[in-house]
Amino acid sequence: MDQRVSFITLVVTDLGATRDFYVDGLGWEPELHVVGEVLMFRVAEKVVLSFWAEAGFVAEVGHAPTRGGVPPITLSHNLATTDGVDTVLEQARVAGATDVGAAEQRAWGGYSGYFADPDGFRWEVAHNPGEIGQSVLP
Amino acid sequence: MDQRVSFITLVVTDLGATRDFYVDGLGWEPELHVVGEVLMFRVAEKVVLSFWAEAGFVAEVGHAPTRGGVPPITLSHNLATTDGVDTVLEQARVAGATDVGAAEQRAWGGYSGYFADPDGFRWEVAHNPGEIGQSVLP
Repeated sequence: MDQRVSFITLVVTDLGATRDFYVDGLGWEPELHVVGEVLMFRVAEKVVLSFWAEAGFVAEVGHAPTRGGVPPITLSHNLATTDGVDTVLEQARVAGATDVGAAEQRAWGGYSGYFADPDGFRWEVAHNPGEIGQSVLP
Repeated sequence: MDQRVSFITLVVTDLGATRDFYVDGLGWEPELHVVGEVLMFRVAEKVVLSFWAEAGFVAEVGHAPTRGGVPPITLSHNLATTDGVDTVLEQARVAGATDVGAAEQRAWGGYSGYFADPDGFRWEVAHNPGEIGQSVLP
């Protein structure tokens, strides 16, 4: 098994709220939208971020996903500058994100802050000046 | 905020078990490993999959992640053929994956099966003949 991720799928409780946040709020353009079922966005050259209504997940994976609290995952959106971090956190706040934190200098050398999407999935908005952090920039 | 994911971070309870599965089991090569803290793998040209020990997440995000059951996320590993799906599911089983399901034809037109990593994160191993599915292949 090669070390490759093709799709990141987040299971959501209200796909309409997801659409409102990412499309209307952040201005993202869907690659696919099947109303009530799935909403996909290209987030890297060969990686798609997919939001999947819970019923589809339960039917295919065979388990109800754990709900409540903060999911054990973050997605990060990295930027070339610390100003960019502040700007994107403000964009997220305007788009309706919740739990929008102020960015801080981190012990690992970067500058980052978090926000939550409608299902509580945490996004990290980060400037990471290290080698790996730089390697993921566009 | 551009539609871009730089890091996918999964919060784990035992980073040693994570390392044993992905490095010893699947043969993946870390991009960074800070024992007891973080283990990173390149999974796309500009995307890194990071496993983060829970204490770091709690300190930085400010919440304990929800635990128990099946996390509301899947990562997919897509392949050009259905035989490839069967092969990778068997590789995962040999590597120590749990809940390894047999692949099936899916209503959405593909062929896929799931396995769980040491923290219960579900990987989908998939052949997706549709346009988006083909676009994520190497």
